[in-house]
Amino acid sequence: VSLQGTFGEVLKEERQKQGLSQEALAFKSGLDRTFVSLIERGKRQPSIDSLFKLSKALSVKASQLIERLEEKLK
Amino acid sequence: VSLQGTFGEVLKEERQKQGLSQEALAFKSGLDRTFVSLIERGKRQPSIDSLFKLSKALSVKASQLIERLEEKLK
Repeated sequence: VSLQGTFGEVLKEERQKQGLSQEALAFKSGLDRTFVSLIERGKRQPSIDSLFKLSKALSVKASQLIERLEEKLK
Repeated sequence: VSLQGTFGEVLKEERQKQGLSQEALAFKSGLDRTFVSLIERGKRQPSIDSLFKLSKALSVKASQLIERLEEKLK
């Protein structure tokens, strides 16, 4: 599994934990819904800027999402 | 200061702390030297993939670089 695909999993898990739809996450983060969907499916990877927007929308720290990614990649 | 510019500072500080040139960091990370220079000057931002390559080359965790970025943005 790629780094990109694994980040998609981390994002999707956190979004679903919070009971948010992709639409809601896209709206809260100011990102395009299609872009959010592509990230979750590992087809795109976020820049640091998008990472911070997604983190803010989910009320988690960007570094926490990256830590979870590191855990999954072990 | 932008998020992008601040990440550039974090990267430059860590690189200089280790006494590496931009060329050496570029070589170790497999990224283009120009790209490394643009990131440090806040003209480009890395994707998650590039973030991990840079982190690996510097032997620090990607999440640590992001934590430092969060600290600086406070």
